Amino acid sequence: VQPKKQTIAILGASGYTGAELLRLALTHPYITIGALTADRAAGKPIASLFPQFRPYNLPQLVRVEEVAWQAIDAVFCCLPHGTTQALLAELYHRYTHLKFIDLSADFRLQDPQIYQHWYGTSHKAPDLQPQAVYGLSELARPLIAKARLVANPGCYPTAIQLPLVPLLKAGLIEGEEIIIDAKSGVSGAGRSAKEANLYSEVTEGLHPYGVGQHRHLPEIEQQLSLAAKKAIKVSFTPHLMPMSRGMLASLYVRLRPNVGVGELLQSWQAHYKGEPFISLCPPGEAPQTRHVRASNQALLAAFADQLPGRAILFCAIDNLTKGASGQALQNLNILYGWDEQLGLSQVGVFP
Amino acid sequence: VQPKKQTIAILGASGYTGAELLRLALTHPYITIGALTADRAAGKPIASLFPQFRPYNLPQLVRVEEVAWQAIDAVFCCLPHGTTQALLAELYHRYTHLKFIDLSADFRLQDPQIYQHWYGTSHKAPDLQPQAVYGLSELARPLIAKARLVANPGCYPTAIQLPLVPLLKAGLIEGEEIIIDAKSGVSGAGRSAKEANLYSEVTEGLHPYGVGQHRHLPEIEQQLSLAAKKAIKVSFTPHLMPMSRGMLASLYVRLRPNVGVGELLQSWQAHYKGEPFISLCPPGEAPQTRHVRASNQALLAAFADQLPGRAILFCAIDNLTKGASGQALQNLNILYGWDEQLGLSQVGVFP
Amino acid sequence: VQPKKQTIAILGASGYTGAELLRLALTHPYITIGALTADRAAGKPIASLFPQFRPYNLPQLVRVEEVAWQAIDAVFCCLPHGTTQALLAELYHRYTHLKFIDLSADFRLQDPQIYQHWYGTSHKAPDLQPQAVYGLSELARPLIAKARLVANPGCYPTAIQLPLVPLLKAGLIEGEEIIIDAKSGVSGAGRSAKEANLYSEVTEGLHPYGVGQHRHLPEIEQQLSLAAKKAIKVSFTPHLMPMSRGMLASLYVRLRPNVGVGELLQSWQAHYKGEPFISLCPPGEAPQTRHVRASNQALLAAFADQLPGRAILFCAIDNLTKGASGQALQNLNILYGWDEQLGLSQVGVFP
Amino acid sequence: VQPKKQTIAILGASGYTGAELLRLALTHPYITIGALTADRAAGKPIASLFPQFRPYNLPQLVRVEEVAWQAIDAVFCCLPHGTTQALLAELYHRYTHLKFIDLSADFRLQDPQIYQHWYGTSHKAPDLQPQAVYGLSELARPLIAKARLVANPGCYPTAIQLPLVPLLKAGLIEGEEIIIDAKSGVSGAGRSAKEANLYSEVTEGLHPYGVGQHRHLPEIEQQLSLAAKKAIKVSFTPHLMPMSRGMLASLYVRLRPNVGVGELLQSWQAHYKGEPFISLCPPGEAPQTRHVRASNQALLAAFADQLPGRAILFCAIDNLTKGASGQALQNLNILYGWDEQLGLSQVGVFP
Repeated sequence: VQPKKQTIAILGASGYTGAELLRLALTHPYITIGALTADRAAGKPIASLFPQFRPYNLPQLVRVEEVAWQAIDAVFCCLPHGTTQALLAELYHRYTHLKFIDLSADFRLQDPQIYQHWYGTSHKAPDLQPQAVYGLSELARPLIAKARLVANPGCYPTAIQLPLVPLLKAGLIEGEEIIIDAKSGVSGAGRSAKEANLYSEVTEGLHPYGVGQHRHLPEIEQQLSLAAKKAIKVSFTPHLMPMSRGMLASLYVRLRPNVGVGELLQSWQAHYKGEPFISLCPPGEAPQTRHVRASNQALLAAFADQLPGRAILFCAIDNLTKGASGQALQNLNILYGWDEQLGLSQVGVFP
Repeated sequence: VQPKKQTIAILGASGYTGAELLRLALTHPYITIGALTADRAAGKPIASLFPQFRPYNLPQLVRVEEVAWQAIDAVFCCLPHGTTQALLAELYHRYTHLKFIDLSADFRLQDPQIYQHWYGTSHKAPDLQPQAVYGLSELARPLIAKARLVANPGCYPTAIQLPLVPLLKAGLIEGEEIIIDAKSGVSGAGRSAKEANLYSEVTEGLHPYGVGQHRHLPEIEQQLSLAAKKAIKVSFTPHLMPMSRGMLASLYVRLRPNVGVGELLQSWQAHYKGEPFISLCPPGEAPQTRHVRASNQALLAAFADQLPGRAILFCAIDNLTKGASGQALQNLNILYGWDEQLGLSQVGVFP
Repeated sequence: VQPKKQTIAILGASGYTGAELLRLALTHPYITIGALTADRAAGKPIASLFPQFRPYNLPQLVRVEEVAWQAIDAVFCCLPHGTTQALLAELYHRYTHLKFIDLSADFRLQDPQIYQHWYGTSHKAPDLQPQAVYGLSELARPLIAKARLVANPGCYPTAIQLPLVPLLKAGLIEGEEIIIDAKSGVSGAGRSAKEANLYSEVTEGLHPYGVGQHRHLPEIEQQLSLAAKKAIKVSFTPHLMPMSRGMLASLYVRLRPNVGVGELLQSWQAHYKGEPFISLCPPGEAPQTRHVRASNQALLAAFADQLPGRAILFCAIDNLTKGASGQALQNLNILYGWDEQLGLSQVGVFP
Repeated sequence: VQPKKQTIAILGASGYTGAELLRLALTHPYITIGALTADRAAGKPIASLFPQFRPYNLPQLVRVEEVAWQAIDAVFCCLPHGTTQALLAELYHRYTHLKFIDLSADFRLQDPQIYQHWYGTSHKAPDLQPQAVYGLSELARPLIAKARLVANPGCYPTAIQLPLVPLLKAGLIEGEEIIIDAKSGVSGAGRSAKEANLYSEVTEGLHPYGVGQHRHLPEIEQQLSLAAKKAIKVSFTPHLMPMSRGMLASLYVRLRPNVGVGELLQSWQAHYKGEPFISLCPPGEAPQTRHVRASNQALLAAFADQLPGRAILFCAIDNLTKGASGQALQNLNILYGWDEQLGLSQVGVFP
């Protein structure tokens, strides 16, 4: 028998992660689009913001306050950081039938003090923080399956945890002096109009940004520390790339004694056996972000470093898909016990 | 009851149209991938050429001669111009159960002399030319449904016919002095290594090419003449754009007396009513190629020209999808009487 | 003897045309940079806005009101449309030693009513409008040489007039139904933060915009009418390209009886003989915008149309250089009787 | 008195470094272009390969054998790796008045065995190897001034040595476990037609390449070892960027005890004081490759790492300018005792 369809709301459908979620959800057989919110564009069709949806019959954009929550089963929060927590402080308790998948950073950090340090304000729903399950699908499936509130991981943390967590858990690499040089497409910065993200400012050039100050750092360190069962500090340097989608994490790590790249690959193979969204590159082949463009795939590769005792790891994802909305949909599939590939079977768009 | 699955072969899977066809076919519920050919890469997995297919279980690449034709139902020919005709001269008669969809230009021109003029060589399967049905899906559905050999239209001809044919048929625009300024992404030039298509030669600049000499010109004129029931000559100027996918035709036409843009829009609405892959932009909105990226959609728009008695028409498609492999798959759906949207429900990938 | 150095002010140095002017002026042997204004960044170094100027010793940014006009000889106004006229209404009469080159549209339209129609407000310095010389360098050199106020042409009008004006003057092409399909890089839209100009909204796609409504239309028609000595109306459709710099005008024109492309080329050769910034492509070669990138060159080409009695013309420029700041500097050279190539000898940056 | 003009030959003017050298040399007051070679295009104008040179009066392309060496003073070798050495084996001894600046890798490695290991063939001019001066302009000025044969550094080695060499010399950073994550534009791969460098293969994505195998590695280690006066091994991972020009080296280093970022900055300031082509970013500002586009500038920055005792260094250059032809011209200026900025005063082209 076919599962019961579930009705979803996408809060913040005017942004890139909202649109990406809608793109994927439209191919999902068990999902009905119940509500799309966009405060400033309320009353308009979503196609007025994203014309690619013109051929589809979709509900008109509404304000968050106008959503008929009783008709909704699951809520994707694609809102700016800080706004989800205020909303959920009320919604979570009032509509107890609702499940939430939050794509913002609001519920990713477990320690309220660390949250306050990095976001400069106290959390508005501290009682919900312990309820939230950190939703890196492949690494937390059982917990996600039982959650009411999933904190969807950030894009950088996803690309960094997928290769590192199994190796730290297995004790194959050192936890000290992990060097992360990460590269992201511009869509990760969202759709808001900023001079720094104009076409002419971004094309045909690149630069590091937020050196030592990026807000994904505490999320990365929190999760790697949990995996390693000890405090992990990393060096994390993001770079802005002249491309819209795509993310690559280049990881420079020290191997534990008597460990070689072969052991790393075996560990990944064992850990990710049967995972539909994780692929290992053949030996000697480096991953390219374009091969996972608009797909939920992650590509992993490991190389021996020229420097003895060290290895170089790579992970390529699409920052909007596996790094945001694709993983969110994957988490919904886990929540409802559906086939995890539903709505996510798109092949990478290349060329 | 579910239709019987059909097994396809993709000849020329090492090129962009072959890969695009495979990307789409993998989401089609009634298609089995029976064979993928690539002469120089025979014996390798398709993922060695296009790593985006690594997660999929696909047949190994073979040479065309190695295909077990008895196990194949339909053949997509994604081969270079000139090679399909030689192959089909034999295959068509020997394996009469096979259906063919040819994405090359080999069977698009009905007049062998015009073929010879533009391609500089005589046709190698002149007896098959009359068998071929010119497969612009929306405009030739009944003929395609009965064909054994479909000549899939070129990308420029598709983007040009979709807006013009209904208007010429309805006598709303003049057939004289139609000015076509067309813009294409580089993937239309294929994957072969040419200096002119190197990244550094293409990025951040543009230029016209093949002015008055592009091989799509006779195809355009043949089809517009059939629609207008008189000989049509056009001015056709393609331009190479610094982008991989996407095509825009900007059409500058003279209106017949007493015709306004409103009549053009009504004609399109009537002609394309219910068509899943044709959308009209709302009045005043111009189409953007990025909104049909990696989708089979075509976006049409009409504007009154500043010059009285004239109109400006636009059509945006993805040159690899509706302009090639998407339309080929649409034609397969027509051939088998399937829902035309199967395998083609992807939303445009934007951003 | 070496000419006396002149001191310039660049008003609006925080924008792209201001920065481009500064880039060129720094290589000019007779120019001293006297003042750079940027209201919101006053007090900062220009390198805080455009780090490429860090190695240069330049005056700090000031507000327009802070400029010591007595120390300035010539003023480049790179301000937004509407602001120059208000400023010059006072400045022009008060500091009569100053020469002005205005890169905005404020003084390009001779007819105040047409100005009001297109800009929705009455002109704030109507007495200065008759003083302004429309500064397309190659076409108005004697007038520019004597001007105190030069209205620097728009980028589209430059790319359109250079090929058309000599042909209209010589009566070689018809003035009716000139079809202009123009393509521009995004830098033409300036540096202000707008969603539509974000990298992710622009890359890898294209679209027409302002169809029939672009503010360069009246400027084009005014100037072509002057050249043809009769009222000229054109069809003008700009398209936004996924590139930062570069502009191509594709012009579809009808030839006068007994005129061929050969006559067009001869007319250009005669008209532009010895011009350092105008090059004709060899027969059969189409111009590429990338070959004039960051240079003041214009590339012209003419092709016979497939349609008898018609021709296709192309003009490629860099919208920021010959289309704006390069031409402004060329006009300064004319104003002071200097070699016109001073500060403008840069070869196109390709690749 | 004005210095005597010198006549140069550019061997390999059909490639990107040849064209870049010509672009710069055309603005040099003391250089005459004596010969441009391109074997396959001999007899044609350079503008047939690079139309940006059409406005210039330049010698026709000839074959290397056709150069009248007696009329030449200095030779820029922009030939593929392996061909310069064979040519110079004869030319160097026969025409003793000639000075050579070789942009290939042929004379960069001092140890013939290391050369053979990395290039798979024995060197064809081993007697000249000791004559060659490794020409990183800022670091070897006195030796370059006296050289007859300058081995112009590779692009990656330039971007890596500029920040590291002063710090290694001063003993401020450890020589062990230097991690280099480098990013390059595609023009570094040259103009030869390769599938991997096609626009559609490169745009909107990125990937590491040559991991642990890049031929610039021995050059980097040779030079850093000389600076540190001990054997240095590094971890070096290049990444291909979706851009034509530009290079960024991100360097992750360990500080010597009691050293902070302040000391690094002071060391650079002392070392590069008065250098016209080296700029330090203000504290907290990261360099962007676009700000040095088409200029000979290098931008350096240092940040404290989150990890105690470590620092993150960046160096941005244009791979074709400071990374190749710009530095070659700078070396010519040194050879002739000219002002080092001659021909190199171009401001970075941004936007």
